[in-house]
Amino acid sequence: RSVSTRARQTLRIGMIPADGIGHEVLPGAKAAIQALGSSIPKTEFVDLLAGFEYFTRTGTALPEDTVQALQNDCDCAMFGAVSSPSRKVAGYSSPIVALRKKLDLYANVRPVTSVASSPNEKPDVDLVVVRENTECLYVKDETQIIGPNGKEARAIRLITQRASRRIGEMAFKIALNRPRKGGFKHLTIIHKSNVLSVTDGLFRETVRAVPTLPGVDGKYDSVTVAEQLVDSAVYRLFREPHIYDVMVAPNLYGDIISDAAAALVGSLGLVPSVNAGDTFVMGEPVHGSAPDIAGQNIANPLAAIRSAALMLRHLGYTDGADRIERAADEVIREGKCLTPDLGGKSKTTEVVDEVVRRI
Amino acid sequence: RSVSTRARQTLRIGMIPADGIGHEVLPGAKAAIQALGSSIPKTEFVDLLAGFEYFTRTGTALPEDTVQALQNDCDCAMFGAVSSPSRKVAGYSSPIVALRKKLDLYANVRPVTSVASSPNEKPDVDLVVVRENTECLYVKDETQIIGPNGKEARAIRLITQRASRRIGEMAFKIALNRPRKGGFKHLTIIHKSNVLSVTDGLFRETVRAVPTLPGVDGKYDSVTVAEQLVDSAVYRLFREPHIYDVMVAPNLYGDIISDAAAALVGSLGLVPSVNAGDTFVMGEPVHGSAPDIAGQNIANPLAAIRSAALMLRHLGYTDGADRIERAADEVIREGKCLTPDLGGKSKTTEVVDEVVRRI
Ligand SMILES: CC(C)[C@H](C(=O)O)[C@@H](O)C(=O)O
Ligand SMILES: CC(C)[C@H](C(=O)O)[C@@H](O)C(=O)O
Repeated sequence: RSVSTRARQTLRIGMIPADGIGHEVLPGAKAAIQALGSSIPKTEFVDLLAGFEYFTRTGTALPEDTVQALQNDCDCAMFGAVSSPSRKVAGYSSPIVALRKKLDLYANVRPVTSVASSPNEKPDVDLVVVRENTECLYVKDETQIIGPNGKEARAIRLITQRASRRIGEMAFKIALNRPRKGGFKHLTIIHKSNVLSVTDGLFRETVRAVPTLPGVDGKYDSVTVAEQLVDSAVYRLFREPHIYDVMVAPNLYGDIISDAAAALVGSLGLVPSVNAGDTFVMGEPVHGSAPDIAGQNIANPLAAIRSAALMLRHLGYTDGADRIERAADEVIREGKCLTPDLGGKSKTTEVVDEVVRRI
Repeated sequence: RSVSTRARQTLRIGMIPADGIGHEVLPGAKAAIQALGSSIPKTEFVDLLAGFEYFTRTGTALPEDTVQALQNDCDCAMFGAVSSPSRKVAGYSSPIVALRKKLDLYANVRPVTSVASSPNEKPDVDLVVVRENTECLYVKDETQIIGPNGKEARAIRLITQRASRRIGEMAFKIALNRPRKGGFKHLTIIHKSNVLSVTDGLFRETVRAVPTLPGVDGKYDSVTVAEQLVDSAVYRLFREPHIYDVMVAPNLYGDIISDAAAALVGSLGLVPSVNAGDTFVMGEPVHGSAPDIAGQNIANPLAAIRSAALMLRHLGYTDGADRIERAADEVIREGKCLTPDLGGKSKTTEVVDEVVRRI
């Protein structure tokens, strides 16, 4: 199954709002894609179910129908956000983590870029977090026993050479190809091998070895490689974010680092991502389901809109992606129509209209 | 063996500079303690070996003599910093991680407070990270096999009820007793139980249950308990640090969060910690060995000096601790004698002299 051959006639996009503000931001993504008109193929949107709310009603967080529809009837998808139960709920397991694994969306790509200079924002942030998306502690292989001193719980952290290599290849490719102010190409490997010498040692060595793989032939010679311990990377992200270009990280560090980077550009409500595999791509705003503001039409739709652009870019629709991103950037830069997370007073739907008008 | 009975006559302090700037900042801690004169018991300093440099010379990172001396001849200790090899080195394992476990220093307590308002610093930071110090991925139980797709490495993440309970008790105690501007007592439990429902589920439930333990009897009723996912905690630390008072976290999250918090107050060179157990306490600046600036007499000694104060406070020498902390705060607030990490031009030894003069 190849995305590109199917994509020629119609682009079928699975839409999974899931929980909370997921329902409010995905319509913005849809409107932005529709506004592109004939510059991309005809689109069809397929509404799909998943999430914690859905679980509480049905006992299933990710119905098999949704997975089947994505695998068989869709070229790509947009995911909203999931809620987390505030207590352990028997039988519940995060549908987004499951989707990433079931569709083998092994890379979570999260560009974080400063656009406007608000007091909340650091200037000169222009980085991409490339997060491994299928293993590390996210294999969720956990056990609990009762020992002599009470309960003992264990989780497995899995790092494989195969997954480290493919995320490393993705990161080098992104570092080589992304246009970046200043022009330098820089890849920072994030790890904690001073403690986890075997697992993070394998991750770091495998990523470092990508330029020596057969067929690479000096292609990555222009990419400077550095590495950094995860604790110190979070510190330096706050202090001197301009030093970073592409950061590649195992799953959990990538999760934390992308939230840290989001804090630098004013709001999580701005930061997009794609979950990408070799044959499928799913856009997903980095923010959560925000139950505290859900249903009020004040959630920031820009992360979802930018995620739609990223998804299109990944499918090769560069012009469409550029047009959506430029429109979103303009709205942010103008600063007149912004949701409360950015200090504005506008509604979700007003921001969507403003972006759509500029596409 | 009880610290308090031994401590009455002489206070024997193990000094382990270890690597890099550890050798430059520990003399500052020593000078500050000595400046207290007769307000604390007579002190004796015991110089002890450990570290990566020591390992490269001898093949051992933490000599048994050092552990013995700490256990049998010292009431407390100060640790400098360790270097991490840039590649996996056979047989090397971090001496600080080993010391924390061998001496059962189960709590790593890291107060982060803004003092002066420099452009680098967020105002109103006044929090303590209480980090579990003996388990999580730091058990370093790692294996590697060759599978059908290449190498596969696994690490165990261990969370026990016993360790979660004692760190929870420590965190509640600190939340109850620390003086804090504003007066509210607030404990935030950091976890990622939306992914790690068993291990982090156990951590969170166990800490939450501390107020219901036998003998507690409503003692913690004035402490408000909240919880937060680690990714979102790093985000909010950066955006609204004033919301935090005491944060309690499993080992790795605590490592990352304390570096994130350090970034808020201008420099890692300011942030102290103690590794505390039931019968021993070891002060340790949060910063690393900083090989890039080692040997130049420009490392910031304030984190080590403040760590000495914390260590004394933990032993019950409140006045001595207050005097050292006040002197350090004054030097920071005046802003005339600061090392380059804080934008100053002063030498390590000049800052030490300035603090000692004020004690
Ligand atoms: C909802 C949660 C399971 C998820 C994760 O940890 O991956 C989220 O934080 C994210 O970053 O996409
Ligand atoms: C040096 C390293 C093993 C250590 C840790 O991860 O605990 C350090 O980062 C710290 O925070 O004390």
